[in-house]
Amino acid sequence: MSQQTVMEKTEPETQQVERLMIILSKGTLDMVYPAFMLATTGAAMGKEVHMFFTFWGMNAVTTKTSANLKVASVGNPGLPMPNILGIIPGMTSMATRMMKGRIGKAKVPSIPDMIKTAKDLGVKLHACSTTLEVMGTTKEMLLPEVDDIVGAATMLELSDKAQIIFI
Amino acid sequence: MSQQTVMEKTEPETQQVERLMIILSKGTLDMVYPAFMLATTGAAMGKEVHMFFTFWGMNAVTTKTSANLKVASVGNPGLPMPNILGIIPGMTSMATRMMKGRIGKAKVPSIPDMIKTAKDLGVKLHACSTTLEVMGTTKEMLLPEVDDIVGAATMLELSDKAQIIFI
Amino acid sequence: MSQQTVMEKTEPETQQVERLMIILSKGTLDMVYPAFMLATTGAAMGKEVHMFFTFWGMNAVTTKTSANLKVASVGNPGLPMPNILGIIPGMTSMATRMMKGRIGKAKVPSIPDMIKTAKDLGVKLHACSTTLEVMGTTKEMLLPEVDDIVGAATMLELSDKAQIIFI
Repeated sequence: MSQQTVMEKTEPETQQVERLMIILSKGTLDMVYPAFMLATTGAAMGKEVHMFFTFWGMNAVTTKTSANLKVASVGNPGLPMPNILGIIPGMTSMATRMMKGRIGKAKVPSIPDMIKTAKDLGVKLHACSTTLEVMGTTKEMLLPEVDDIVGAATMLELSDKAQIIFI
Repeated sequence: MSQQTVMEKTEPETQQVERLMIILSKGTLDMVYPAFMLATTGAAMGKEVHMFFTFWGMNAVTTKTSANLKVASVGNPGLPMPNILGIIPGMTSMATRMMKGRIGKAKVPSIPDMIKTAKDLGVKLHACSTTLEVMGTTKEMLLPEVDDIVGAATMLELSDKAQIIFI
Repeated sequence: MSQQTVMEKTEPETQQVERLMIILSKGTLDMVYPAFMLATTGAAMGKEVHMFFTFWGMNAVTTKTSANLKVASVGNPGLPMPNILGIIPGMTSMATRMMKGRIGKAKVPSIPDMIKTAKDLGVKLHACSTTLEVMGTTKEMLLPEVDDIVGAATMLELSDKAQIIFI
């Protein structure tokens, strides 16, 4: 037995493709954005990337809402406006327009564009079966880009040895 | 020395039990839910699962609040109602009832039920010592299911080689 | 070839320094706090710790806001006050004062203090380039403690084999 043989036995592990599992549980533009930024960047770097949409995160892959996600204004002290303004009807949409305007100027793609890019790069999109049941959402209400509807167990199996990012 | 001996030396690593550390920092039903779903599913799959309750997450294991967690309605554009409605007294509890009703129909267990299941499956529940100090909460106010009160250092030690999920 | 040689080939992996990547996307005191608690604790334990500030998390390292972060009161059912109170002007600052008062009593350091400690312990602070562009923030508006401005790809490279915590 040569030393070469031994080294071959220990090497494969370091050459294995890295896996990223992004669990998206929020439905606001300011959280869906980073989720897709990380997913597309990771995939472009050669990682195997999975996204699992659960709770409010389902909005990102629901036909009716995907292109119209809002930025949270009320209750987000991170936004430079007092809370009292947040409750005036229209303020959330104003904050959303402001942010979309800025994103447009910064040449950052829209969510539907990012979903297309993600799919092109091989990112797998999984919808949470429990959320669909609880929210009363059907498969037909989801974007065609969604790969499958799976439970938490399948998601954790897909996360085997992966870096998990819960957003 | 035989090849067999060499292989035995490299094998054990892949057989080691996988570890999951779920840090729960939110106290709303829509975030506590996924935390326990992941914990019980992971434990049922044979993983060693730890939960660390910090900041608002402490509500999940505090006797007074555990069975009465609310869904965020104000400031959550993910919910299908305008922000202005969220501030009408009672709207958060209405959103909470709606969600609990749906969860009931979908036959998803309640949080206290999920805590019992988690414990039965061997999930360890750790309360954050700093949070207790800051919130003025005492050990007696916590559910008896809580295993211990630990600091961030112990939590990170328990997270050694674990997949960390921060919710 | 001796058995000793083989063991040396498989050992280094377990001795490698552990790496922690904390992605901070929230700008409220109740989320920035745990981020720095984890960062400083991890660094004190000998881990290589990186923090990546994105979206609202940029507030933590922006000169104007770093010492004045607020606690979310509206829309956080985890706080013991009804939502309707949250929209009264000043309630967010009252909740913030309450929390800061408690933190002071519990002898927990302030955010600027925690940033200094983090830097002393070798924690690297990275600001997200896309966020700066979208928010219209310039390098000069950031704390001098920030190490560099990087994109998502660099952040993911720094996260190689790291435990990722998304806050």
